[in-house]
Amino acid sequence: MVRIGIFGLGTVGRGVLEIIRSRKLPIEVAAIVDRSYLKKKDIIGDIPASDDPSLILNDSSIEVIVELMGGIDLPLYIVREALDHKKNVITANKFLLAEHGYPLFSKARENGVRIGYEAAVAGAIPVIRNLQNIFQYEEIPVLEGILNGTTNYILTRMRKEKIGYQVALAEAQKLGLAEADPYLDVSGYDAAHKLALLASLLSGKWVEYHHIHVAGVDQVNLTDILWAEKMGYRIRLVARYQNKGGLITLSVEPTFIGPGHYLWDVEMEKNAIFFKGEFSGGHLFLGKGAGSLPTAYSVVSDMMHYLQGNHRHDADSDQNWPYAHPVSLDEEEAVFYIRFSVSDKTGVLAILTRILSEHNISIASVHQDIEIPNEGEVAVDEPVDLMLVTHKCRRKTLKAACLEIEKLDTLKGSPVLMPVDGQL
Amino acid sequence: MVRIGIFGLGTVGRGVLEIIRSRKLPIEVAAIVDRSYLKKKDIIGDIPASDDPSLILNDSSIEVIVELMGGIDLPLYIVREALDHKKNVITANKFLLAEHGYPLFSKARENGVRIGYEAAVAGAIPVIRNLQNIFQYEEIPVLEGILNGTTNYILTRMRKEKIGYQVALAEAQKLGLAEADPYLDVSGYDAAHKLALLASLLSGKWVEYHHIHVAGVDQVNLTDILWAEKMGYRIRLVARYQNKGGLITLSVEPTFIGPGHYLWDVEMEKNAIFFKGEFSGGHLFLGKGAGSLPTAYSVVSDMMHYLQGNHRHDADSDQNWPYAHPVSLDEEEAVFYIRFSVSDKTGVLAILTRILSEHNISIASVHQDIEIPNEGEVAVDEPVDLMLVTHKCRRKTLKAACLEIEKLDTLKGSPVLMPVDGQL
Repeated sequence: MVRIGIFGLGTVGRGVLEIIRSRKLPIEVAAIVDRSYLKKKDIIGDIPASDDPSLILNDSSIEVIVELMGGIDLPLYIVREALDHKKNVITANKFLLAEHGYPLFSKARENGVRIGYEAAVAGAIPVIRNLQNIFQYEEIPVLEGILNGTTNYILTRMRKEKIGYQVALAEAQKLGLAEADPYLDVSGYDAAHKLALLASLLSGKWVEYHHIHVAGVDQVNLTDILWAEKMGYRIRLVARYQNKGGLITLSVEPTFIGPGHYLWDVEMEKNAIFFKGEFSGGHLFLGKGAGSLPTAYSVVSDMMHYLQGNHRHDADSDQNWPYAHPVSLDEEEAVFYIRFSVSDKTGVLAILTRILSEHNISIASVHQDIEIPNEGEVAVDEPVDLMLVTHKCRRKTLKAACLEIEKLDTLKGSPVLMPVDGQL
Repeated sequence: MVRIGIFGLGTVGRGVLEIIRSRKLPIEVAAIVDRSYLKKKDIIGDIPASDDPSLILNDSSIEVIVELMGGIDLPLYIVREALDHKKNVITANKFLLAEHGYPLFSKARENGVRIGYEAAVAGAIPVIRNLQNIFQYEEIPVLEGILNGTTNYILTRMRKEKIGYQVALAEAQKLGLAEADPYLDVSGYDAAHKLALLASLLSGKWVEYHHIHVAGVDQVNLTDILWAEKMGYRIRLVARYQNKGGLITLSVEPTFIGPGHYLWDVEMEKNAIFFKGEFSGGHLFLGKGAGSLPTAYSVVSDMMHYLQGNHRHDADSDQNWPYAHPVSLDEEEAVFYIRFSVSDKTGVLAILTRILSEHNISIASVHQDIEIPNEGEVAVDEPVDLMLVTHKCRRKTLKAACLEIEKLDTLKGSPVLMPVDGQL
């Protein structure tokens, strides 16, 4: 029997309690700390509870803490204290680890304890342990994933029902899939936190999420979605890790993907991770990215794993990680979709094409009219969308051309740019 | 450094050598036994080699044998001997384990050694270890998979190119995806061997593959494929395990699946496994089901796993398994597709519908004409296909009706029957 303490009895915390109770695992929940513990007596039962962290932190018989509070300041204090008290930590908090993981993992190593974070990345999908314990004997040159269910839900609804971004977001909020403040999800930063953890594991170096090229779904509008569909593509928020002979590139951005792509059929709030093993080839792992019991199961299974000591070959156990130095995407060559918002489309196309051709960027196709259902009449002076797809070009070159185009009077706002991805 | 011996230096055996050599793993290949070892000197190098199994079996310094010979009689002898000599066994031989696994696993337990068989099921997909080491704390009420790449390739080619079964099979043979004698693949028995191993692991009881309801792709013709497509379905050879409160049902059969199904997009020679965890929800694992390096990677990763002793919680380590008693599919209710081959379709439809209605089976749709491309004129006296889809009915009832229908003079051969599966 191992004594554990749980911080935070929200939906995931309750799920953890439910699984431990129903499966009769050799785990004793010795204490619970929750802000509103008094209101949760029916779930807590006779487990000692408090809103004071010291109930758990000062109990030397507690070997493992489960941190499921959300937020970042209090969790940081608690995880740090727990590690100082030589307690193992299991957490689902990707923001905390992406932001403060380096000193926390170092502290854990120094104190001979562990941080389990399977539940922090892609919910119920056991990607961390598969990469740590099964695929550690080969190089993984590429990993691509849909790591944020909320935004995948939004993009799916927009496409299926031809609704705008704001409407789809509001629906997601109504269903509890998006938070009142959806910034971390829609900006792409939640996915970037998870990608940083995956990239650190894969490269054996600590990846700062600030080094990831991030664009969010908040820049995607219905025009993009409909045009993508017309061309036979779908837009997904793709998190991507690439390692070419030690040169690591990292991005989270809305990406056009085609029907042969592994992530094509990953709809609604599902998460999925595709990676290629040097020997074992392509793998897709698909599953629930969130939810009370799915995430709770990851917490419990991770905890049992560490309790059994089956972890000696985890990548994070060896030594302190050096910092990674990802390279920028500037040199990357790809096909790009660009949407310009223009006030006068008759004259502007000629100028746009001239500027692009001056930068040696050749255009594969141009599109101006896409029917948006139920949009009604567009006022004459409203900006209209002008979309084009390039042939393969360097990202850096395209960015330079776009900077020049942005200065035109007829341009309203910055151009929106998304890579067009083929099959893997 | 652990000393291992390899039996069989075919494509997978070579892959194992290549990975061990290139990754500098703490493994020493101490000896190789291969029928044609003299012709393989360029790969074997200075590793001691022979065609005599005793080179490995009698070397007490060899702790692990890797059995990659193919066939069943000689592997059985070798694995049994190896276990008697207290050597661990890693094998990709599903036929051997499905046929003789019970005494072999028992012998391994008695002698305190292990049989690793990750590579025997679904090639590079790490399904065995995920079920053993990550999902062992929850019930798995359903598992469905495409466990045979050869037949999935055949079905995909038939659909995409509208070619007949024999043509697609010949193509697969030309590409080395199907063997000269394709019986084990096309009959469904190769998938059944793998399903038996998975079902044993999931249920904690030994499942004899003879208890699995098996139908092969050799009964699927182009008419079925085209009609499925017309209705919005695809035909896949689905291996299925279900456990309803301890009642286990098992089947391998061509199945109609719809576009929302997890296995919808699993094309060509890919393998995939879907399962539902009681807590963690639905998971899809997709990857390469065969091939030299992918299968070899499974062998190597599995071997490292056992060498590190990270196996104490494997389901097969606890005790002797009781035998499982799967129940028949007779009571199962499903929608079915049936194809009758009839000599005279004008009169026969009335008789068929009468017999079905006498068994209280109601018909959802009937179809008689499907255009087969490039088939030319059909002779007047040739049997023609008559297809129908039922409403939900009991398999037992349908089988009884079919038995009665089979006796009609106008029927040519037995009706072909496939369940129509919706979304999971």
